[in-house]
Amino acid sequence: MISHLPMSSYKKRVDRVQNHLVEKGTSGLFVSNPYNIFYMTGLFHFPTERPIALFVPQKGEPIFFIPIMELEEAKRVTIFKDIRHYFEYPGPIHPIDWMVDEIKGEYSNLSNISLDSGSHELFTQIKERFNGVSISFDSIVHTIRLTKDSEEIELLKNAAIYADFIVKSGMDIAEPGISELELLQEMSNRTLSKMVFDLDEVILVPGGPAGGLVPSGDRTAMPHALPSAKKLQKGETQILSCGANVGGYRVECERTCFIGDVSQEQEKVFNVMAEAQQMAIEAMRPGMTCAEVDSVALDHIRKAGYGKYLLHRTGHGKGLEEHEAPWIDEGDHTVLQPGMVLSSEPGIYIEGFSGFRHSDTVVVTDNEPLILTKFPRSIEELIIK
Amino acid sequence: MISHLPMSSYKKRVDRVQNHLVEKGTSGLFVSNPYNIFYMTGLFHFPTERPIALFVPQKGEPIFFIPIMELEEAKRVTIFKDIRHYFEYPGPIHPIDWMVDEIKGEYSNLSNISLDSGSHELFTQIKERFNGVSISFDSIVHTIRLTKDSEEIELLKNAAIYADFIVKSGMDIAEPGISELELLQEMSNRTLSKMVFDLDEVILVPGGPAGGLVPSGDRTAMPHALPSAKKLQKGETQILSCGANVGGYRVECERTCFIGDVSQEQEKVFNVMAEAQQMAIEAMRPGMTCAEVDSVALDHIRKAGYGKYLLHRTGHGKGLEEHEAPWIDEGDHTVLQPGMVLSSEPGIYIEGFSGFRHSDTVVVTDNEPLILTKFPRSIEELIIK
Repeated sequence: MISHLPMSSYKKRVDRVQNHLVEKGTSGLFVSNPYNIFYMTGLFHFPTERPIALFVPQKGEPIFFIPIMELEEAKRVTIFKDIRHYFEYPGPIHPIDWMVDEIKGEYSNLSNISLDSGSHELFTQIKERFNGVSISFDSIVHTIRLTKDSEEIELLKNAAIYADFIVKSGMDIAEPGISELELLQEMSNRTLSKMVFDLDEVILVPGGPAGGLVPSGDRTAMPHALPSAKKLQKGETQILSCGANVGGYRVECERTCFIGDVSQEQEKVFNVMAEAQQMAIEAMRPGMTCAEVDSVALDHIRKAGYGKYLLHRTGHGKGLEEHEAPWIDEGDHTVLQPGMVLSSEPGIYIEGFSGFRHSDTVVVTDNEPLILTKFPRSIEELIIK
Repeated sequence: MISHLPMSSYKKRVDRVQNHLVEKGTSGLFVSNPYNIFYMTGLFHFPTERPIALFVPQKGEPIFFIPIMELEEAKRVTIFKDIRHYFEYPGPIHPIDWMVDEIKGEYSNLSNISLDSGSHELFTQIKERFNGVSISFDSIVHTIRLTKDSEEIELLKNAAIYADFIVKSGMDIAEPGISELELLQEMSNRTLSKMVFDLDEVILVPGGPAGGLVPSGDRTAMPHALPSAKKLQKGETQILSCGANVGGYRVECERTCFIGDVSQEQEKVFNVMAEAQQMAIEAMRPGMTCAEVDSVALDHIRKAGYGKYLLHRTGHGKGLEEHEAPWIDEGDHTVLQPGMVLSSEPGIYIEGFSGFRHSDTVVVTDNEPLILTKFPRSIEELIIK
């Protein structure tokens, strides 16, 4: 099973960025967003104060700037020949100043540089050090990341296997008396062991290779309730809100389950949520806007009388980040295109009683929406015996 | 054992910021850095695209702006009476625009606002929306965070207990044949179980309540080698690079161990590292600069002939972040003050052979440096039988 992209992917990405720079007449792009660095180079790193950047000139070889401690790893995983390193942060010369000096030393005729992102401090520092070169922002890397190619979808399909597996493990392990923390620990362990066995490489991204949130009882009414020492109890709702990543690509699979038994009241709200979720999935087709998909789901919940229990939008993009653009929200009018990968996860949260949310990861295609996560969604299959 | 700060801490912090604003003649501070939000409010959150901000006016009640899904938690943990929420990102009106409108609605006579940090995009958006109010940056919250008070040091002492415990667990569990991934999983599990048992609250920060890196053999020569399927072997170096956090305050404890046996060559390099580490600890006194402490340790390593095997500075600040200012580096001329909390962790990394690094977390005091982490550091006590 593949666990990372072929090296050719990175060459294609550099080509796309360079074509864009030619079109725009930009001298070069300074990439420093950590996810964009991973996307363009294949080097995953936990961002610290030590800056890492890729300078993509309009023509020629990119320059990859890293702290010396990443040198071996950068040589191992990236296609770049021109890797330059600094010793430490902040250092006798600030690493960003050094990067600018290196770029100026390599290219004497720069007229304008774009940044992919960054703090106001970074912008100001680069502007001052380049002194005379025009500095702006360009979201080309984020734009390319919006739609996934077949190789990326292959990785997402593999990640979905483990997202389903961790939910299944959760249902197998959950029982009255176990705490949320123990439950999460054990389901993560089982899934990680399987991933280490199956895959040639497991990348440790934030959140881990597989994990999630597992609120139980009335804590399910908090969408982001962190795992606690609370013990599971018969008759309570149990949300298994899980995700897994393969090669840095993340998929989420979330299920609303019930410990032993489900009440009529639980079932009634569950059904409204499940219908809304399915309607959003059905609506994830080229030509629809994010805002339109959002209202399909949330309006269904509102019409059923649960509007005041909404705490969030219908979903968001999936890819390298836990949440990424586009946003399935009334404020995002992006038109869906084939290759976009989205979560469908409208939720209903009744304080003091229970929350209800499924999430699946869905690819927009030219035909039917492709649901990557396959774990059962019907209430009968979600009762934990 | 205390696991979080008393509510009075947050009142004190707001007072300090407001006094600073009066002194500077600033109308208000817009705090949005996630660690600064935690520091000022006690609300921990994993930053997503949904902005969270605290507006501290020169006089009067701060306004806390959050997405609705954080409302219950914000009410539970913070002292603020004026909590305002928005539904979603990006929403029909962008949350940042909404925050600015709310602040303008509350205060009609604002002349100048400072931000604590933020992207160039945030800066530009706030500047445009405030339209006429002068916008700048002010690092007052970061500055206050540089020195820890007695309540914070109490939490750090408690965190050190678990940082020591996870290293001890690692030594107990490590044996030839087990993989790095399994080792890390098992030591983290044991420590988490103990924390859940001991503490009334365990905060799930990035990196987990307790965890780390556990490179073995020649992988120890990469300072940030992520856990892999590599199996431990007799005679190899085993680095246990661990940390734990209590109430959001983090401590690190790292030890260079040996599986079963240690060679003369390993011992020779180990001794140089251990001497340098102790010398840096000894030098962590008020009046010394970060750069001076750094050269004490690194010059010792250079004089012993291992200068070309240095891959990083001597250490960094500890507190809410894994790494935070000040930096024990030649480029940081900050003068040490009582209450600063620092790691001492010079390392020697010989590719193809082995890496060597201990790390302890040390408080600068008016008297002797206070080492929070107590795990043994001598080679005899670090041989895994």
